[in-house]
Amino acid sequence: FKSKLPAVGTTIFSQMSQLATEQQAINLSQGFPDFPASPKLVSALAQYSAQGLNQYAPMPGIAPLREQIAALIQRCYRRSVCAQQEVTVTSGATEALFVAISAIVSPGDEVIIFDPAYDSYAPAIALNGGKAVHIALTAPDYRVNWLQVADAVTARTKLIIVNSPHNPSGMVFSQQDWLALQQLVLAHNLFCISDEVYEHMVFDGAAQLSANGFSELAARSFIVSSFGKTFHVTGWKLGYCVAPPALTVEFRKIHQYVTFASFTPAQYAIADMLAQQRQQVSGLAAFYQQKRDSFAMLLANSRFNLLPCQGTYFQLADYSAISELDDVSFCRWLATEHKVAAIPLSVFYQTPPQSRIIRFCFAKQHDTLQAAAEALCQI
Amino acid sequence: FKSKLPAVGTTIFSQMSQLATEQQAINLSQGFPDFPASPKLVSALAQYSAQGLNQYAPMPGIAPLREQIAALIQRCYRRSVCAQQEVTVTSGATEALFVAISAIVSPGDEVIIFDPAYDSYAPAIALNGGKAVHIALTAPDYRVNWLQVADAVTARTKLIIVNSPHNPSGMVFSQQDWLALQQLVLAHNLFCISDEVYEHMVFDGAAQLSANGFSELAARSFIVSSFGKTFHVTGWKLGYCVAPPALTVEFRKIHQYVTFASFTPAQYAIADMLAQQRQQVSGLAAFYQQKRDSFAMLLANSRFNLLPCQGTYFQLADYSAISELDDVSFCRWLATEHKVAAIPLSVFYQTPPQSRIIRFCFAKQHDTLQAAAEALCQI
Ligand SMILES: CSCCC(=O)C(=O)O
Ligand SMILES: CSCCC(=O)C(=O)O
Repeated sequence: FKSKLPAVGTTIFSQMSQLATEQQAINLSQGFPDFPASPKLVSALAQYSAQGLNQYAPMPGIAPLREQIAALIQRCYRRSVCAQQEVTVTSGATEALFVAISAIVSPGDEVIIFDPAYDSYAPAIALNGGKAVHIALTAPDYRVNWLQVADAVTARTKLIIVNSPHNPSGMVFSQQDWLALQQLVLAHNLFCISDEVYEHMVFDGAAQLSANGFSELAARSFIVSSFGKTFHVTGWKLGYCVAPPALTVEFRKIHQYVTFASFTPAQYAIADMLAQQRQQVSGLAAFYQQKRDSFAMLLANSRFNLLPCQGTYFQLADYSAISELDDVSFCRWLATEHKVAAIPLSVFYQTPPQSRIIRFCFAKQHDTLQAAAEALCQI
Repeated sequence: FKSKLPAVGTTIFSQMSQLATEQQAINLSQGFPDFPASPKLVSALAQYSAQGLNQYAPMPGIAPLREQIAALIQRCYRRSVCAQQEVTVTSGATEALFVAISAIVSPGDEVIIFDPAYDSYAPAIALNGGKAVHIALTAPDYRVNWLQVADAVTARTKLIIVNSPHNPSGMVFSQQDWLALQQLVLAHNLFCISDEVYEHMVFDGAAQLSANGFSELAARSFIVSSFGKTFHVTGWKLGYCVAPPALTVEFRKIHQYVTFASFTPAQYAIADMLAQQRQQVSGLAAFYQQKRDSFAMLLANSRFNLLPCQGTYFQLADYSAISELDDVSFCRWLATEHKVAAIPLSVFYQTPPQSRIIRFCFAKQHDTLQAAAEALCQI
């Protein structure tokens, strides 16, 4: 039989994390923290499981968690969403993205995505018979040219996928970007998937914006986020999708046959955290800004040239002063010879630009960043 | 936009569980136990989470769990599978079924399924552009007529989905059934998905058989199972798929973009259970046979006519001596007037037969079964 995804191999994240393990390299590749989650969260998990809450959660997620998600959106973006009809808990943002794409994309539909793009978008589009139309963003600031986007719209364009704060570049949409997106979506009757898993990591005092804050855009959007990034538990695989009732109906039709429901005790534990530990969310930007800054300081004497980072927990670095290797080879060399694992940027592009840029994850303890920087400064 | 699944509503399991809650009815509908999981399992979860194992698991599942799955298959079916290349951990059997169907089914392909069929098969086939070819099994014994199946095979038939022990009927494939299936698959170059989530619940001393025990069949099969049923934690959403290396490659290509990985601490906890608490698995058949028998005894004086049950934790019951209502209406009446929730059988059929049969889940404490039976005996 023929492969449904002939071009796909193992994700770069798996490859690099495995190489990091083999090489005993410091792993700044796959995006996850190396410090512990809140002990409150961990003990809430234990407690709810010990209480016997180990059977199926309701298919859309437990009500207290959905209500806390609605309250969070109210606090952050002043939008009222209906916990009952507009919020669905998923097995990570990955599931939410897959289901939202599946709900919208039919054979022949075109979907606009921005490269560098998170690696799951294009395969999920392909599995649904759609065609990804790639628009390349480039160094140093990776900003969207909305006129270029408008030019890419055709009669077949059904959906646009955006991701701000943007992985891997750290670019963050301005108010103008959101307004331009909204206008485009309305003008062409598109749907939008807004991947906002780094929403609480916006730096330097910039406003934390979201599709949730633009009501006409939100009315045509699936807004996806994740607790893995926000609460330092990427292995809990708990995310959610916010969409208007009619879109949520379609989303849940598919979600119920993709995973049906998500890990029950973690839903209760996260609901508690959202209710009681609000500063964990509101303090997240300052927490990661400090890490960004200290990592940059530690690399000040290296030959890496750091690109601007407005949000996320990723730092792009240009290594053209160091090597002429392509970025995949450079990452292999770096992990093997200097024991630091990073992610090559070219793998996020359909047509990679001629650049020598790699991505470091700085969601790490100070000691880890220091040890990595020491190695990187010696190159 | 048009719905990708226009005919689909909310699953009957969600509907009936919700009705049970509203009516404060005893819930014998959705399949989950009302007794606690092993305290060892619950405390292992807490312990691994407290140890800090809260970040992404490897995409195919943690190695110790995959090795324990391979060991379990060796113990139960004398088959050697490669933990590295043939076993993938998923977010419940539901995800495994969805991904396996997505890996195989392309637009135009036909897939043979047996009605009454688990409700996720047909929508997953439809989402991939395939056509489900339904073969109806009927009361009282729900056995497959393999000549009829052979007649249903066309040049477009790509896949056959089997489920033994069979939900909802409790029918269990004999050695002859498996051999007939194997012959059919080989003769027509089909692929097979074998949904075996009730594999450890086979009663009355019958042999526990699996696609794993038929090597030429296994070579073309995705074999799906789940820990939710085996360890009484349906809310943990941890399942797996066993398939030969070439099929596993395709399976993982899709799995990595559907959920990427599953809840990390639960993977470690289940791996421990499989290593240390083998009698929990090997004693499961006797445990549920006893429940089946005591539920039947408690209903001996009722006007329900119980059908044979060779496996699973479900009991079919014919209510034609009680009512002429169709089964959906009868289930609503039963939950509302007599405070016992069950599942109507007709919803598992594309073309329901003229029968009056409902499904009870007997994975319940003795007190629950007794209270339900008391109500049912008064009708
Ligand atoms: C699902 S593994 C990828 C983690 C991540 O978000 C990243 O590294 O970009
Ligand atoms: C995923 S909810 C359905 C549970 C179940 O397996 C059943 O009741 O048949």
